[in-house]
Amino acid sequence: MSAYDGVVQELIDELGQLPGVGPKSAQRIAFHILSADTERVHRLATALTEVKARVRFCEICGNVSEEDQCRICRDPRRDSALLCVVEEAKDVVAIERTREFRGRYHVLGGAINPIDGVGPDDLRIRELMTRLADGEVTEVIIATDPNVEGEATATYLTRMLRPMGIVVSRLASGLPVGGDLEYADEITLGRAFEGRRSIDV
Amino acid sequence: MSAYDGVVQELIDELGQLPGVGPKSAQRIAFHILSADTERVHRLATALTEVKARVRFCEICGNVSEEDQCRICRDPRRDSALLCVVEEAKDVVAIERTREFRGRYHVLGGAINPIDGVGPDDLRIRELMTRLADGEVTEVIIATDPNVEGEATATYLTRMLRPMGIVVSRLASGLPVGGDLEYADEITLGRAFEGRRSIDV
Repeated sequence: MSAYDGVVQELIDELGQLPGVGPKSAQRIAFHILSADTERVHRLATALTEVKARVRFCEICGNVSEEDQCRICRDPRRDSALLCVVEEAKDVVAIERTREFRGRYHVLGGAINPIDGVGPDDLRIRELMTRLADGEVTEVIIATDPNVEGEATATYLTRMLRPMGIVVSRLASGLPVGGDLEYADEITLGRAFEGRRSIDV
Repeated sequence: MSAYDGVVQELIDELGQLPGVGPKSAQRIAFHILSADTERVHRLATALTEVKARVRFCEICGNVSEEDQCRICRDPRRDSALLCVVEEAKDVVAIERTREFRGRYHVLGGAINPIDGVGPDDLRIRELMTRLADGEVTEVIIATDPNVEGEATATYLTRMLRPMGIVVSRLASGLPVGGDLEYADEITLGRAFEGRRSIDV
């Protein structure tokens, strides 16, 4: 249903491809753009292009970064003995907000999910093993989401890491089960860090 | 709270300015952009810029258009005796979808709303009067939203148009009261057109 003239419809179509933006929202945003300040729209268009041009993934931890290595991996004050494994880069931001954790991160790029065809080989688990090889890391904190896929990933990682003599822990309960880690408030997430427990598989 | 590195945060901030996009949605869209096809992101950025560069408002009816006059105003097959007055350009699209109406449109650019400080002079009412001056239009159908502001606008217009000897009608009930015209389904909106009634003020 191409209801609008050329470029307006193109914009609505492109906006409608974004996550959480349905056809009605896309139309509303497009009309907002039409009457918005040209300067502001240019800033949005530029931000979109710049992000694609300049942002890459940290070669060490997989976090988003404008450099080859992210600012956490470059920071010499972070504790290299403590490694926190998360699913997504946005989980790093959520944990940093608690100010509870001073170690380093490893971003898996997702969780094991057989239904969507995501297996261990699709995640950055091989890179994790390489990072752990030199023995500098003594504890791995698994901070995958407290849902089925996150738990499955935690169990899988624990089975791989235990034989290497590394202490493996999981964020404490306190996180609402079935939810998304990134939506937890700072206090809940901070307490979950403090009360992390060793995994018995 | 600037949680991300430079350009990622800039993109999140810009996206968060869009209507209906909160901070969490902005973050989700930004991460979608990060992992999306570069080609696709460029298409979105281009569509944003193009819309601002190429789309203007029709000099006759106020609808959005890439030309000085919109495709409806340029179409000689449309009935020039029948003029439908709407609040927004998206209402034109909603009515066109019903295929019930073969006349022309006039877009007011909003509705009378004293709380938001929108009075008759802020709408394209003077342009409407100019269009009606030559007597070609014999009926004006007022299709403002069936809410308080829309009704107030309809009453105001009726009082101005009646003394000019023009038949003034209002879309029939059938539209859910308190709602937005643009969300009505085709059948409801089509019936409302068929059953339009003369206004007695």
